[in-house]
Amino acid sequence: MAANSDDIRKTIGRYVEFMNASDVDSIAALYAEDATLEDPVGTEPLRGREAIRGFYAAAVGHVKLEPTGNPRVAAGEAAFPMHAHLGETQILEIIDLMAFNDDGQIVSMRAFWSTDQSQPVI
Amino acid sequence: MAANSDDIRKTIGRYVEFMNASDVDSIAALYAEDATLEDPVGTEPLRGREAIRGFYAAAVGHVKLEPTGNPRVAAGEAAFPMHAHLGETQILEIIDLMAFNDDGQIVSMRAFWSTDQSQPVI
Repeated sequence: MAANSDDIRKTIGRYVEFMNASDVDSIAALYAEDATLEDPVGTEPLRGREAIRGFYAAAVGHVKLEPTGNPRVAAGEAAFPMHAHLGETQILEIIDLMAFNDDGQIVSMRAFWSTDQSQPVI
Repeated sequence: MAANSDDIRKTIGRYVEFMNASDVDSIAALYAEDATLEDPVGTEPLRGREAIRGFYAAAVGHVKLEPTGNPRVAAGEAAFPMHAHLGETQILEIIDLMAFNDDGQIVSMRAFWSTDQSQPVI
């Protein structure tokens, strides 16, 4: 049975909150032990919660996430659009795609963003 | 070699244009002969251009697509956010996820939308 859609929405809300609070341990705890993370899409996925924790430890503080729409949730997966604010001068348009296990943990995350484009803040 | 990112952006632009013009033949021609379509995510994918053409023949006219951000393009895949206007009274938040072959044809499309949610137009 797929994870509950409302639980998935709550987890995504917490993910954004923890990212913006630079709370690396809490982010890592949202992931399953054997989860994968591919950021950006096309790179070799990281495997396992410890590797994923290391990724976020390096990333937080440099990125603030601003949702630009509601998560689209279907059958234990979700896609959600964001602006990633990189410092005060650049915005990157991102869509994160996550799959969840029956316990509502993230089992895979794929971050879609155009490696050839970011937009200056006006 | 992955499809060119700018070609992918153009194809997505045409896809939205053809959808809003109810041009079913042109939509189908954007797909590879053996492509798959899963709409919404979690349903059994349709396989092959003819089945895909039939899907769009039934859908166009009822849906107008309004992009709500730029496509996020990486490594021959793209995700892009939209509002789907269903008649004049409902908006559905959608993210389409497409993969492209080396010739720039769509080889898979997965439509993420929350089957439990649509929003009334205020």
